[in-house]
Amino acid sequence: MTFHQTIISSRLNVNVDAFHVSREQVTPDCPVNWSVRKVRLHGGRQEGVDLIVVDNGRMKLRIVATRGMNILDAECGDVRLGWDSPVTEVVHPNWIEPDARGGIGWLEGFNEYVARCGLEWFGAPCEDTHHHAPGEAPANNLTLHGKISNLPASEVEVLVQQEAPYRITIRGLVREESLFGPKFALGTEISTVPGESSFRVSDTITNRGSGEEEFCLLYHVNHGTPLLEDGARIVAAATRVTPMTERATEGGVENYAKIGPPTVGYSEQNYMLDLCTDDEGWTRVMLQNAKADRGVSLSWRKAALPCFTIWKNTQPESDGYVTGLEPGTNYPYPRPSERKAGRVMKLASGASHETSIEIAIQPDADAVSATTEDIAALQGDAETTYDSAPPA
Amino acid sequence: MTFHQTIISSRLNVNVDAFHVSREQVTPDCPVNWSVRKVRLHGGRQEGVDLIVVDNGRMKLRIVATRGMNILDAECGDVRLGWDSPVTEVVHPNWIEPDARGGIGWLEGFNEYVARCGLEWFGAPCEDTHHHAPGEAPANNLTLHGKISNLPASEVEVLVQQEAPYRITIRGLVREESLFGPKFALGTEISTVPGESSFRVSDTITNRGSGEEEFCLLYHVNHGTPLLEDGARIVAAATRVTPMTERATEGGVENYAKIGPPTVGYSEQNYMLDLCTDDEGWTRVMLQNAKADRGVSLSWRKAALPCFTIWKNTQPESDGYVTGLEPGTNYPYPRPSERKAGRVMKLASGASHETSIEIAIQPDADAVSATTEDIAALQGDAETTYDSAPPA
Amino acid sequence: MTFHQTIISSRLNVNVDAFHVSREQVTPDCPVNWSVRKVRLHGGRQEGVDLIVVDNGRMKLRIVATRGMNILDAECGDVRLGWDSPVTEVVHPNWIEPDARGGIGWLEGFNEYVARCGLEWFGAPCEDTHHHAPGEAPANNLTLHGKISNLPASEVEVLVQQEAPYRITIRGLVREESLFGPKFALGTEISTVPGESSFRVSDTITNRGSGEEEFCLLYHVNHGTPLLEDGARIVAAATRVTPMTERATEGGVENYAKIGPPTVGYSEQNYMLDLCTDDEGWTRVMLQNAKADRGVSLSWRKAALPCFTIWKNTQPESDGYVTGLEPGTNYPYPRPSERKAGRVMKLASGASHETSIEIAIQPDADAVSATTEDIAALQGDAETTYDSAPPA
Repeated sequence: MTFHQTIISSRLNVNVDAFHVSREQVTPDCPVNWSVRKVRLHGGRQEGVDLIVVDNGRMKLRIVATRGMNILDAECGDVRLGWDSPVTEVVHPNWIEPDARGGIGWLEGFNEYVARCGLEWFGAPCEDTHHHAPGEAPANNLTLHGKISNLPASEVEVLVQQEAPYRITIRGLVREESLFGPKFALGTEISTVPGESSFRVSDTITNRGSGEEEFCLLYHVNHGTPLLEDGARIVAAATRVTPMTERATEGGVENYAKIGPPTVGYSEQNYMLDLCTDDEGWTRVMLQNAKADRGVSLSWRKAALPCFTIWKNTQPESDGYVTGLEPGTNYPYPRPSERKAGRVMKLASGASHETSIEIAIQPDADAVSATTEDIAALQGDAETTYDSAPPA
Repeated sequence: MTFHQTIISSRLNVNVDAFHVSREQVTPDCPVNWSVRKVRLHGGRQEGVDLIVVDNGRMKLRIVATRGMNILDAECGDVRLGWDSPVTEVVHPNWIEPDARGGIGWLEGFNEYVARCGLEWFGAPCEDTHHHAPGEAPANNLTLHGKISNLPASEVEVLVQQEAPYRITIRGLVREESLFGPKFALGTEISTVPGESSFRVSDTITNRGSGEEEFCLLYHVNHGTPLLEDGARIVAAATRVTPMTERATEGGVENYAKIGPPTVGYSEQNYMLDLCTDDEGWTRVMLQNAKADRGVSLSWRKAALPCFTIWKNTQPESDGYVTGLEPGTNYPYPRPSERKAGRVMKLASGASHETSIEIAIQPDADAVSATTEDIAALQGDAETTYDSAPPA
Repeated sequence: MTFHQTIISSRLNVNVDAFHVSREQVTPDCPVNWSVRKVRLHGGRQEGVDLIVVDNGRMKLRIVATRGMNILDAECGDVRLGWDSPVTEVVHPNWIEPDARGGIGWLEGFNEYVARCGLEWFGAPCEDTHHHAPGEAPANNLTLHGKISNLPASEVEVLVQQEAPYRITIRGLVREESLFGPKFALGTEISTVPGESSFRVSDTITNRGSGEEEFCLLYHVNHGTPLLEDGARIVAAATRVTPMTERATEGGVENYAKIGPPTVGYSEQNYMLDLCTDDEGWTRVMLQNAKADRGVSLSWRKAALPCFTIWKNTQPESDGYVTGLEPGTNYPYPRPSERKAGRVMKLASGASHETSIEIAIQPDADAVSATTEDIAALQGDAETTYDSAPPA
């Protein structure tokens, strides 16, 4: 038995103004008080944005239906997953001009905990003349991080299992599609179990077009205070750590995992990691605080998201003190570079690519310690090579 | 006596949420049940789009007030005028970035049966330094097919004759205007008579500025299944058929009228036709299905829309299996080329250009046959020249 | 005692659909009937725009919350402050594509009496590679007149003093902010006293980022009929008048103050004035009608807005017959030129820049005459140099 309610649907011509469902109505036997709400935002650049707020009784998730089903933030006790971007509001995509200031307009709406980049391209802005589709082939101006974060959900459903473990799922569909362009459908299921301190993001990208198409997806998972602080660190099992730029070599590539305090004039440092996996192909990384008594981990199947990027951007808090852990299908270099490196994936007509990331909070020192051990086990005896310079 | 109701008006500060009128209220003596409704769309990229649905008792027309009074589709028995674009929703123009992917962002919202292109420019994206207006003269980046399809109606009125033939008219006004730019008003009347299987699109473009201005208008009239199918064909009376590109010469220009099946890897083929007219200057073209028992014809005065383009784009259905019949003031080459060829029209200050297209369904073999004869009569003894190559 | 009501707030998630307050409710002892209303606009490109209408009993002001708290117009008896732009509606910024037609898309929404330009840049479109922020440094495409007029108010409050002089204040906050970009907050207070024929615009720009940032602000204050007419003139006290372009030298720079009739083919003429001030650093300019019996004056502290530009654009009325009086932090040349000339101001982290402009109507010949004398007193014995050519 599953409770099922459609709250946004272009197919059914529905977008409910407000919605609320909770334990009493749907799962009276569930021992944990949970609820799901839909809230419409008002004022400034957030006018008309739809949020889905999931409270699983222990942890509160806010999903932005209007911004590609990104996850604004999560709160669990004194742990906050999210960051304080200088972008104050949850910006409706209609305010975003991707071309602004040399192709970085995407940044004017960027403030989520989980922001997807893709699906036709992501990475730094550039020109790209490659074009698969029939018809004219104009020079292709790729703007920062693609379109998917600035597209609205066409369909949003709430599903709740009516027997243990009473999993709550927010299912969304986002279309990135054009004549003579991509025909991608992004199906997402963001789910959590009442009383737990973790959630899962399971996505399926489908190529609805008739031909093989390049695609890409990067999860820009962004951490700020209080987890991020001077002395916080990233825990990962990697066979190789490579700086993306010369800037990332400053301070020593082998110190990539150490988080410093908010620093005036800090310029971002980015690293590419070749992660170790378990026998089933899963990998895991963690960000822990300075005392190692709070943390958050991301786990995923490496084959689905083989490229892991760390974005250290420990600027002053007013500019956005943040560090991103970013599993992706490729690295965030401009698409032509990624294509040349053979990292841009393709989907045959009708084919799908599936990803799933489990995001779990470590609420105490024991949990941090246990996760550290799990990650150490992934590393095993494997050595880590630290490249002293970015790729040529 | 005419029933008259304003449903959208920026002048009166009105946009009714919903509207419905029907035979009983307005024309009780009319033998045919007709109705006009206004519907607001929800979900995804169609949030906030206003449709006007006209049911004349035999045929149903859907007009998109928010997309320049384009016509989404028409249904009449088993004939559907329209196509299945990979663009699923009726996209609100605020989602369209005309500059996207090299200036072809227009395609991300393109799925109508009748989409207007213009009014300042249409055709392939290009740079154009020509600029009439006083003030600065920056390099002018023209994006695909101009702005008019992505501008909303400022005024929409419903008019119904209260005596026979009880013609139903949806009157709209769309403004394409800027300081130091165009000051065009597009007045449109889309009308139909209860019980008939045809409708008329009558447009008036007025130059409200003080100086002479270039203008252009192309009707992108797009046909998909079930009318479009392997063996369907275009029936036209032409003295000359010219391929727009090398690609259009493949398969033989003289076979331009034959429609093939959905074809993987098909790249569009475009033809320019110099059409024959009757004594009053009217021309007519038809698309008929494979059995020649269903068809649709377009009739218009050639002086108003002298350039006729055929857009064969028989891609697989998932990419958009479609063929466009496109009467225009000029051809869809980039504006600088059209200007050089002397085809860009001008309007003096205060002057207007009027067009009217009658779109009629041929519901059976007899009607197809009769229309074929009408078009043959236009051709008369005139020969058709088939150019073997595109213009230099 | 102050009446205080929030009507738009992204912080509080509020945007009231309609609002009305008036003398009876709040200041029963005030001898003048005043009111403040909020109105939402509908139809065409104005759908969803929020206006604040302030009627002080003698003068009516319309403020556009959705367009950066610009002032649409003011009416006071037979004086209208405003102009008839070819842009008919109060355009929602989501319709504006700043990049359109070579970077002048801003003009497609430009029709206010007071339109702010800035805050990251203003002036003619250009490329600018200068970039302060950490992170990537793409070539920076600056579009005409920047973003602030096309950003919505995040917070709007109505404040009314409940004792004499019963000043009515509309307080707004507009954010121009991005990761790796500006972090500006524009606080504005637009206020007037019941029964008076003047209002005040007091703005504070704050740099919320961690580093020093360039900023700029220009008030594009635009006058049309009936004040603007053949024989109207600008009254200013200046030590130097410089034409911005060769075009501005035509007719003689020393005739800069004379307004001609609407003129077919007129191309804009722009002048830069170095204005005289009183002992407290204030300056004042006036536009008077042909009979010198109606006028409007602007007064401000020159140190806050040292650069004064006149925009004569006496085109035919259908194109926009208009003259702008434009106090600014710098001149509207492209930003790289202004930077080279040393005129681009900077704000340290956390610092603010304050401006205040008093806009007063001269309702009769005596008032015009008195203001003329005030401005003559500013000039005193100082001579005016008229440059015969624009700067090199």
